[in-house]
Amino acid sequence: MAGSKLINITIVLKVLSFLLIVEGLFMLSGIGFALYFGESVLPLLFSSLITMSVGIPVWLLTKKNDRRNIGKREGYLIVALTWVIISIFGTLPFLISGSITSYTDAFFETISGFTTTGATILDNIESVPKNILYWRAMTHWIGGMGIIVLTVAILPFLGIGGLQLMIAEMPGITPDKLHPRITETAKRFWAIYVIFTICEILLLWLGEMDLFDSVCHSFATMATGGFSTKNDSIAGFLPYTQYVIIGFMFLAGTNFTLHYFVLHRKFSKLRTNEEFRIYFWIVALISIFIAIGLFLTYELDAESSFRSSLFTVVSILTTTGFVTADYSLWPSILWMFIFTLMFIGGSAGSTGGGVKIIRHLLLVKNSLLEMKRSIHPQAIIPVKYNGKSVSQQIIFNVMAFFLIYIIIFSVGTLTLSLFGYDFYTSIGATIASLGNIGPGIGHVGPVDNYSFFSPLAKWFLSFLMLLGRLELFTILIVISPAFWKR
Amino acid sequence: MAGSKLINITIVLKVLSFLLIVEGLFMLSGIGFALYFGESVLPLLFSSLITMSVGIPVWLLTKKNDRRNIGKREGYLIVALTWVIISIFGTLPFLISGSITSYTDAFFETISGFTTTGATILDNIESVPKNILYWRAMTHWIGGMGIIVLTVAILPFLGIGGLQLMIAEMPGITPDKLHPRITETAKRFWAIYVIFTICEILLLWLGEMDLFDSVCHSFATMATGGFSTKNDSIAGFLPYTQYVIIGFMFLAGTNFTLHYFVLHRKFSKLRTNEEFRIYFWIVALISIFIAIGLFLTYELDAESSFRSSLFTVVSILTTTGFVTADYSLWPSILWMFIFTLMFIGGSAGSTGGGVKIIRHLLLVKNSLLEMKRSIHPQAIIPVKYNGKSVSQQIIFNVMAFFLIYIIIFSVGTLTLSLFGYDFYTSIGATIASLGNIGPGIGHVGPVDNYSFFSPLAKWFLSFLMLLGRLELFTILIVISPAFWKR
Repeated sequence: MAGSKLINITIVLKVLSFLLIVEGLFMLSGIGFALYFGESVLPLLFSSLITMSVGIPVWLLTKKNDRRNIGKREGYLIVALTWVIISIFGTLPFLISGSITSYTDAFFETISGFTTTGATILDNIESVPKNILYWRAMTHWIGGMGIIVLTVAILPFLGIGGLQLMIAEMPGITPDKLHPRITETAKRFWAIYVIFTICEILLLWLGEMDLFDSVCHSFATMATGGFSTKNDSIAGFLPYTQYVIIGFMFLAGTNFTLHYFVLHRKFSKLRTNEEFRIYFWIVALISIFIAIGLFLTYELDAESSFRSSLFTVVSILTTTGFVTADYSLWPSILWMFIFTLMFIGGSAGSTGGGVKIIRHLLLVKNSLLEMKRSIHPQAIIPVKYNGKSVSQQIIFNVMAFFLIYIIIFSVGTLTLSLFGYDFYTSIGATIASLGNIGPGIGHVGPVDNYSFFSPLAKWFLSFLMLLGRLELFTILIVISPAFWKR
Repeated sequence: MAGSKLINITIVLKVLSFLLIVEGLFMLSGIGFALYFGESVLPLLFSSLITMSVGIPVWLLTKKNDRRNIGKREGYLIVALTWVIISIFGTLPFLISGSITSYTDAFFETISGFTTTGATILDNIESVPKNILYWRAMTHWIGGMGIIVLTVAILPFLGIGGLQLMIAEMPGITPDKLHPRITETAKRFWAIYVIFTICEILLLWLGEMDLFDSVCHSFATMATGGFSTKNDSIAGFLPYTQYVIIGFMFLAGTNFTLHYFVLHRKFSKLRTNEEFRIYFWIVALISIFIAIGLFLTYELDAESSFRSSLFTVVSILTTTGFVTADYSLWPSILWMFIFTLMFIGGSAGSTGGGVKIIRHLLLVKNSLLEMKRSIHPQAIIPVKYNGKSVSQQIIFNVMAFFLIYIIIFSVGTLTLSLFGYDFYTSIGATIASLGNIGPGIGHVGPVDNYSFFSPLAKWFLSFLMLLGRLELFTILIVISPAFWKR
């Protein structure tokens, strides 16, 4: 009987209701800050109760369902719905506390958190109660945990294109059979994520930040989110704090497999990983180039030019979106490099969003080989990555991903223009949402926010964030007619 | 002996010298206008003599070489060098007449002509002698003839990706075996090209244009070039003239195979051709959308709104680049649609440039099928075009082409910014050159010209025109190290 149904809804509800219970528990974790700052505990308490009072009954009704019934269709649906459902309930603290009054705005802010985008509709962040800002940072951190389990365990199972390659490098699969079970790998990566977060909290706390700011900014850094507790983001903090954040943004944008290897003293893996090398050199070369530009343009000393440049490059490339300088005021050649970085994104297997460096690397390699293939049409000339041949199928998937990304970017830009926004704002908001970055160009530049958009535009941008964060295909497959047919 | 050489240079020289002789003869064709308008015949005469005095001796020395020695390597080299060599000599009339004094400018203008781009460095077109303007229009027309033989006969032989599909529809190959020999097909397409040119000359001459303007504008239309003899392009002409030009731009941007079929009364081919249907609907829908926008924005009557919109849409989509309205002053949503058209281009097998509609069609179809493939990973789901399955190899080639196009566009834009130009001008000049359009956005908008660029930027843009016109690969292969190795 059950096998004849197209989709096993019970198992979907079971997973989603379990996640709602977890979300409710995470909400409670902010009550300590509410008590410490003498704020009302009711918003987080009520939000948690409402969320759990939906989650627990559904879970009790569905928990007997056999785990092994999860098929591909259920997998896609669970992933696509998870981010939507936890965002729907994640709005409660904002709404109950009255920090955000419109549901559209609250949903935008929450999904921007869970997708680790960091685009905000808050005009005055510092007027929001601290325990609510804690929840806001927590949405990033939960989102980051979700992305880790998604890239390590779920997307490979769903066969979503391009990331297989990163997976092939990962312990637990092939060829470094360290831990046969992939859920084991996810747990180890979560441990790395938690350890790095604690390290950052401690290092920030050692500086000028108090514990609250250290926690919130560390949550936002490790998830490559970008929500700050300050109106001017990181600009007001001392160089020490900025350098700590730069360091952890860089770590968050690195493939977690490499952290695992380094923690096990396999440093050679770092040197031989092509994506990491490119990641490092993009950061190094573009930071130096922009630093020289800033040094020559403004009356800044060499260190501030370099810090300003490095912070912006790492923040945008890793799709974090913290801000220390208004790059939109820089000479056009400098901000155009920043704009270009928006289309690159972090490493595969990191919490960073965007197209990802590995995809660009494979596309450029394949493009160069196309010339060779035209001259020697009989020869089979595969793309090599980390010394191994990459199958034609993976290259095909990567190309399809990038093309769909470009199509969505173009259609997104035209749609925002149809809503009446200018060219810069349309392209800026589209890529900043689709790439899960946060700040873009135009009226959504580094010192602006998203509050001025119409409700329709906010829902549209929320959709782009979801699309980008779930590697496009998860959402596109679920909304395709073929998904709902046998 | 000869077989052991990597490249048979003799055969390359033979073809190029023959083309120089032809170019010299075409130069002489303008002498009639020089005499009629009482202008000096010396510039065209001297140019022709110099060109032929290089072409004839080389041809005499190499003509005994056996034709059958043309291999793929020689093919690539001949194509890549043809446009360069005829542009080098094509500058002579401009330089000898003194119409253009710098060699950089003359080369830019000439290669812009031969690549059917239509970007000009002339500030005051109307001050140039008429016989030189005739030569300028003639560079377009020769370029258009070159493109026809290139797409029909040479690129299929070289196996350059993506266009095989257009070829499969073409008489002379499969499955409509009308004319077994492909050179025969090229000749028939040339006949269509000549007939359409004559028809347009007559129709324009019937209106307000004199014979000279009719000839020059017809040359530029049928080649989808865009050089006009007037400073304000087509804006000053009556509606009748504008509609005639719209009609012939549309014809020039249509696959010539379809003209062949229609001339043989096979009208069903037109209805069933998917690329043509998309081409027609893009023109129809975007023209109506923009016409409504113009009607609501400006105090124009319905007919002028429609004409202005239709002219611009057809001119940009077919990559002609004639201008009747300054679209850069339109509301941003309207010119953004025009900007988007710059990335689409004409039909395969037409004289239009750009990415081509068929490539976009295949990419969108393939992207939609990717969802279906993810749900049914075992099933083989090919892209269909005109009812036939398209091989994975062709889709792969089309994707590689588009990605390389995007890479070149991005690198081109960043390069122009490095030269010091602003964002709009950099993206505008890059796509207008690479897509062989002519007018772009920013400081190279519809009422601007390219004279302000530095010499280095002009050489760079000339290179982009060449790259775009020869379907990227021809040039990229010749400049790749693998080409020069065994």
